[in-house]
Amino acid sequence: MNRSAVPPPVTMVLDAAEAWLPARMEAVEERLRRLVEAHGELLAADAGSTLAAGGKRLRPMLVLLSAGPGAGQAAIRAATAIELVHMASLVHDDVLDAAPLRRGRPTVVARSGRERALAVGDLLFSRAFAELGQDGSRGQVELLSGASVALALGELAQRRDAFDVSISGQRYLERCGLKTARLFECACLIARAGEDGGSSVGPGGERPLEPGLTVFGREIGLAFQLLDDVLDVTGPPERTGKARGTDLLDGTVTLPLILARDRDGSLAELELRGLDDGSAEAICDRIAATGVLEEVRAGARRRVELAKRALGRSPLDAKQRQLLELVADGVVERYS
Amino acid sequence: MNRSAVPPPVTMVLDAAEAWLPARMEAVEERLRRLVEAHGELLAADAGSTLAAGGKRLRPMLVLLSAGPGAGQAAIRAATAIELVHMASLVHDDVLDAAPLRRGRPTVVARSGRERALAVGDLLFSRAFAELGQDGSRGQVELLSGASVALALGELAQRRDAFDVSISGQRYLERCGLKTARLFECACLIARAGEDGGSSVGPGGERPLEPGLTVFGREIGLAFQLLDDVLDVTGPPERTGKARGTDLLDGTVTLPLILARDRDGSLAELELRGLDDGSAEAICDRIAATGVLEEVRAGARRRVELAKRALGRSPLDAKQRQLLELVADGVVERYS
Repeated sequence: MNRSAVPPPVTMVLDAAEAWLPARMEAVEERLRRLVEAHGELLAADAGSTLAAGGKRLRPMLVLLSAGPGAGQAAIRAATAIELVHMASLVHDDVLDAAPLRRGRPTVVARSGRERALAVGDLLFSRAFAELGQDGSRGQVELLSGASVALALGELAQRRDAFDVSISGQRYLERCGLKTARLFECACLIARAGEDGGSSVGPGGERPLEPGLTVFGREIGLAFQLLDDVLDVTGPPERTGKARGTDLLDGTVTLPLILARDRDGSLAELELRGLDDGSAEAICDRIAATGVLEEVRAGARRRVELAKRALGRSPLDAKQRQLLELVADGVVERYS
Repeated sequence: MNRSAVPPPVTMVLDAAEAWLPARMEAVEERLRRLVEAHGELLAADAGSTLAAGGKRLRPMLVLLSAGPGAGQAAIRAATAIELVHMASLVHDDVLDAAPLRRGRPTVVARSGRERALAVGDLLFSRAFAELGQDGSRGQVELLSGASVALALGELAQRRDAFDVSISGQRYLERCGLKTARLFECACLIARAGEDGGSSVGPGGERPLEPGLTVFGREIGLAFQLLDDVLDVTGPPERTGKARGTDLLDGTVTLPLILARDRDGSLAELELRGLDDGSAEAICDRIAATGVLEEVRAGARRRVELAKRALGRSPLDAKQRQLLELVADGVVERYS
């Protein structure tokens, strides 16, 4: 992993973890690179630039940290699998949104068209499960497939709610739970779901056996999404890599608008269909003017605190907890 | 399973297998129905009609037959998983082709739009692996993810080759191997990949341990695809559920055209871009006039014979082999 390319909070965690974490993060990068090469020109041409564009690799880091320094190759494979599912979902999201840029680089759909992008997403997705097929456990397959089902349901919910300015905050949070938090949760649990068939999920799938890590993953996932949605309103584009108001243009109603419409009645009457870039930015300004953004940020900070407290109930040792707390802080700091 | 809705060869196999096979096929249908209901209105609205439209359920039947009458619940889950991957790939294919009809009913993309269809495909796909997470083995996850990777690579290959009238027969067969035969192969092997961590694939994934069943699945998969490609040329639409020349309109060059262009030089000069329905049908007639269709059908029949001979090298008992031979014959008979 090229450290100069990763954001400061991640670097901070890498430094605090001594040598084992950066070495394993590099092993995950290496596996991702090899996967692209293994499928030859077909995948390399389309997915290579997406892979190379990097990203925060927050999810694999959560896998490796919750696995701890004593974990073996299976943790690296699980971390790779989680990142592949995340990448697959980004590639498919970009197909749906016809997004031109992701992390400042052309998306697969912009580069290669909808057809190839759809297949590339399917391929990355399949490869994720192939990673678990090598030395994963049944519990890991259950966790990752459950998170993937949630991702797709979240996507369906987002399409169902699209352009509906009246959706409730509750519904918004359910959607964030499905689209974002479940994969974070999965990242925190998967390495501990056993390398030999053990599962951290109860036999009926009804109750996670590690509630501390489950809450930790879920809450930082929600905080991450809340802050992402604030950034869509505030920009600046040169930092987020996309235009302000992109969510509005896609018809995606997020918490800032939901809270703002109660303070500025005219926002409740918005027609989001047919917006252009300029009017989307103007709506962003009106949302910001209501002062709700600080409220959303404060909610995200509360979730991060809740996440850190939940770690006390996890079976992790003090050093692992300390590093996961740094990751949690990093989720907030990236955006402050 | 409503027998009146399934094609005659499948009914023949169901009759020959006595009570256990129809009971298990019905159990697979029941699991598929429950999955759709379990995800509530979101999935039911979009995928319900696709599920209800049925299909031949050839792949689950292969799973159940190769598992044999003594197999348990795990074989039903594996059969369900294979059909879910197949359904997911159909839903995504229809997105790419913007297909209005599948099996005579509106496709998900036609009914609900590209966005929801993409997410529905992702969901069905994830649910497939969730089935294996419940009581599948590592070997099963490896087989199914390998087949899913192949499907996506086949899709990418098809897009790469699109509108290229000069592609070789070899390249066409490679594509069929990826897009169709690998999942048939997987269906024949998956139930025997152990319920407790055993794998029918060698430790390095290099050699299948059941070459007889591997060849059987592969060859009937290829035969199935060859005959499907003949049907696209011959129709009739009221039997295939789609217009003649649909492949040509999508730019998909298949074996009938590849062989025909060597007999009718003018076909080698075709420009497939911008074809309309009428000219696609006219090309179908010119392909048929060269006499290559009987050649392709004969090739498919040879593959079915090869498949049946390979069964002799499998570890299955005489009754299982007899039923699988009926399925193999059914692949040809459906189209004769």
